[in-house]
Amino acid sequence: MGKKYSIGVDFGTQSARAVLVEIGTGKEIATAVKVYPHGVMDEYLPDGKTRLEPDWALEHPQDFLDALKETIPAVIKEAGVDSQDIIGLGMDFTACTILPIDKRGTPLCFYEEYKSNPHAYIKLWKHHAAQDEANRLNEIAAERGEDFLQRYGGKISSEWMIPKIWQVLNEAPEIYEKADRFIEVGDWVVLQLTGEEKRSSCMAGYKALWHKRKGYPSNDFFKALDPRLENVVDEKLSRDIYPIGSKAGEITEEAAKLIGLKPGTAVAVANVDAHVAVPGVGITEEGKMLMIMGTSTCHMLLGKEEKIVPGMCGVVEDGIIPGYLGYEAGQSCVGDHFEWFVKNCVPAHYMKEAEDSGMNIHDLLSEKAQKLAVGESGLVALDWWNGNRSVLVDVDLTGMMIGMTLLTKPEEIYRALIEATAYGTRMIIETFEESGVPIHELYAAGGIADKNPFLMQVYADVTNREIRISASSQTPALGSAMFGAVAAGKERGGYDSIVEAAKEMAKLKDVVYTPIPENVKMYDKLYAEYKILHDYFGRGTNDVMKRLKEIRRQAVK
Amino acid sequence: MGKKYSIGVDFGTQSARAVLVEIGTGKEIATAVKVYPHGVMDEYLPDGKTRLEPDWALEHPQDFLDALKETIPAVIKEAGVDSQDIIGLGMDFTACTILPIDKRGTPLCFYEEYKSNPHAYIKLWKHHAAQDEANRLNEIAAERGEDFLQRYGGKISSEWMIPKIWQVLNEAPEIYEKADRFIEVGDWVVLQLTGEEKRSSCMAGYKALWHKRKGYPSNDFFKALDPRLENVVDEKLSRDIYPIGSKAGEITEEAAKLIGLKPGTAVAVANVDAHVAVPGVGITEEGKMLMIMGTSTCHMLLGKEEKIVPGMCGVVEDGIIPGYLGYEAGQSCVGDHFEWFVKNCVPAHYMKEAEDSGMNIHDLLSEKAQKLAVGESGLVALDWWNGNRSVLVDVDLTGMMIGMTLLTKPEEIYRALIEATAYGTRMIIETFEESGVPIHELYAAGGIADKNPFLMQVYADVTNREIRISASSQTPALGSAMFGAVAAGKERGGYDSIVEAAKEMAKLKDVVYTPIPENVKMYDKLYAEYKILHDYFGRGTNDVMKRLKEIRRQAVK
Repeated sequence: MGKKYSIGVDFGTQSARAVLVEIGTGKEIATAVKVYPHGVMDEYLPDGKTRLEPDWALEHPQDFLDALKETIPAVIKEAGVDSQDIIGLGMDFTACTILPIDKRGTPLCFYEEYKSNPHAYIKLWKHHAAQDEANRLNEIAAERGEDFLQRYGGKISSEWMIPKIWQVLNEAPEIYEKADRFIEVGDWVVLQLTGEEKRSSCMAGYKALWHKRKGYPSNDFFKALDPRLENVVDEKLSRDIYPIGSKAGEITEEAAKLIGLKPGTAVAVANVDAHVAVPGVGITEEGKMLMIMGTSTCHMLLGKEEKIVPGMCGVVEDGIIPGYLGYEAGQSCVGDHFEWFVKNCVPAHYMKEAEDSGMNIHDLLSEKAQKLAVGESGLVALDWWNGNRSVLVDVDLTGMMIGMTLLTKPEEIYRALIEATAYGTRMIIETFEESGVPIHELYAAGGIADKNPFLMQVYADVTNREIRISASSQTPALGSAMFGAVAAGKERGGYDSIVEAAKEMAKLKDVVYTPIPENVKMYDKLYAEYKILHDYFGRGTNDVMKRLKEIRRQAVK
Repeated sequence: MGKKYSIGVDFGTQSARAVLVEIGTGKEIATAVKVYPHGVMDEYLPDGKTRLEPDWALEHPQDFLDALKETIPAVIKEAGVDSQDIIGLGMDFTACTILPIDKRGTPLCFYEEYKSNPHAYIKLWKHHAAQDEANRLNEIAAERGEDFLQRYGGKISSEWMIPKIWQVLNEAPEIYEKADRFIEVGDWVVLQLTGEEKRSSCMAGYKALWHKRKGYPSNDFFKALDPRLENVVDEKLSRDIYPIGSKAGEITEEAAKLIGLKPGTAVAVANVDAHVAVPGVGITEEGKMLMIMGTSTCHMLLGKEEKIVPGMCGVVEDGIIPGYLGYEAGQSCVGDHFEWFVKNCVPAHYMKEAEDSGMNIHDLLSEKAQKLAVGESGLVALDWWNGNRSVLVDVDLTGMMIGMTLLTKPEEIYRALIEATAYGTRMIIETFEESGVPIHELYAAGGIADKNPFLMQVYADVTNREIRISASSQTPALGSAMFGAVAAGKERGGYDSIVEAAKEMAKLKDVVYTPIPENVKMYDKLYAEYKILHDYFGRGTNDVMKRLKEIRRQAVK
């Protein structure tokens, strides 16, 4: 059997990226990117007239099909391989990113009569207009003692499935009525390509309150939300959920024409972008946490048993790797801290110094910060400029910094912000470990992990753990390609499990960030201070942050 | 009797400023400034060879005589008045700024054999090398339950008389031995002009532990410090202390030749620069606090009874106005916060905006900050970038800021720093009032009070008190001229008391900063948060600031 290939497509918020990967080696042969024609719609519908409220964020389903239509032929052409040898397709998506479809699977927004109804479009993950529904849901679930809450850190996000559907029901009952069902766009794309509706366990588990053994919350619970929602699962969703790692179906004749793959090519059950990166860096067992580091950080981890970890984003069986519990946690503000700092707090002469030496300002600040000894700045910060996701699950927390003197320099503040995010990660790690989910090693992917070795060393020193870095600059797409190869199966030249696929195809950089013992010792002391402040300001001893927010609301109204 | 005049000379750290003032109106007729030839010596002695340790700060007594020799003839000439009509001279100085002299009053550093001995020079107020002695003194005084401690907020500063003398004894016993006595440079200048050693109650009271009724601490106490110090007061100081407002003497024939005043011109007992500003703004009764606002702030206040106020810098009978208790408190970091911010935290595009519109960056930041509603920033800071003088008396405290989000702007941080210093002042005011010393109105002098109306309005709103501003840009020199007129007495065309002098000669600006009720209400809420944080970090609940400083010390060693 000659060389075989798989394609992974990573559908991001603004664009999709396809990679054609050689099975057996993980070599990335060709890449193509398609920026969505409509992109994020947060002001107007495509009609250019219908205005959207603040907090809305929509997408257009046609963008997803267009992306496939362009990128897949492009990577096949660039690679110069025979499409016969492309045996699988895997795809990952943002989530919860949902749309209403009719019986035939056609998005309601494709119909002339609904074109000007915002609720007929895709509600993007960062659509935040269902906050009222989310608050109500959390209240009712807490009152009723619903045990699913604790699997999600005690709070459901307004970004998730049920609040979003409930918003449609409240604001556009005609769309709710007309919708045969609501579906994650990932599952919908799979449906378009294969004719099969095979909803993903990852999406259902992390975003729609589904549990492999317990199913969805009870109809009673949904009725308590709103009598009209009593049967929402059976009427508007589906109880048929498929574990990631399984094959959703094969490319239909019609889809084959559209995207240039052979009919019969295996398609994997859809995945979520962060989660699919886990096998993308080669993690297929417990004890290894992946941090996907960008503006925010997602933490992914496998476990053998379902443990309740305070403040995690979710725990889902078959959520990341089949047969394991997949844990997710998050820090809502990581790179965003540094961007804020550079935009608002860096003096002109630093900018000039960076310009004169042809450096990026982040590199200059990192270079200066790196020269400081651990603890030399005398600063400690709480990394809550955008609230705290894990472990406190509190969007109303804000930033804090302590220890400034008249000698405090910009690079010291910059370093303190980096360290604060590392302390936040350590807090997550310790919380997992205290809850019975051990973490021995760290892996990192994403822009920051790629670009800032100084920051990664700080993380290694603060967490006292080795950190390995993904070799791929498109880890999710690579992970998706692995799932495509698994969907095809060994017989067709792929793999029978994601574990095997990851073993052969995942790649890490040569560098390993190793904790430096004397730094670890100093950071233990600093982290102890962080922890005291974290608990004092974050766990209710002094709710000053919330009161200041309330005072602010009164001030600006 | 024709118009009469008085001269006030304000001896600052780097220069002296003389003003010739018309008695009866307070009109400032002429001004002259002399920058000290030697200035602050903190690296080398005048020999250019003898190196000084860090924390040292010396001055040269010749600078003071040179300043008189140049500025007094200059103002007489500029004013075009007959020196017959100049009836008095008053002078104020930094303190504690001391020197060793021999029996004839000659500074030891004037002798060839001591020229290269640093201990033979003037130890400037900000000479900080006697910290070990100050610490030891505080320990011993506390152990012995010395009641003078509480008159100084519980702690003696290393800047003061006894630690400085003790340092001489420890490090240069030959100078200690040779010195007939140690004297404040202010008292020494008076001695040079009049031949009279009339030590000032203000200087002795605030800086040398002297008390009008109790005198100095006991010889037993001094013996406990060091047996060689047992009789330090009688051997090296003097128990003859003269209230400010009294006449020290008259210009001698010799001095008259030197400075161009008539022999017999009255000279007032020396004053301290901050204290003399009180009558300079017209305050001669209780209930009115003067804030002298620059890089730091001095708070001056009169009372009828001696109360113990936690964290004050000192309470001295006849210390400011004869017949009253003079209270002093202080904030060690005010304008310095804003300078630090501008130097380290203001982004390039703000600098450019200021430049393009021809504005000072502080004015631009204030203009932007002023547009915010009270509480809109959502920020609260602790104004401890340089420790806290009153009311916590703790140099090891550091800065803190809370409430930052990704939307926080530079002008919000700038405003939060301004507000923090205003909260610090309110804390001082409340502490005085709780201790039985009422404060009804505020007066301000100094660079910041002059230049930043936005800041002054914040202070009025935060403290809920009217604020009046000195009309003179050289309030201390004007106050000194008043004391000169009082030294001359009514008969010679002056005044019989500083109260009368202040009534006629002190001037205020027309503007009064009046609290805006809705701002007061919001600031009450914000101040409540400040107070919680102030006590949590400042009173030992969480000593994180000190631990971070200790970690810093370990890190850089």
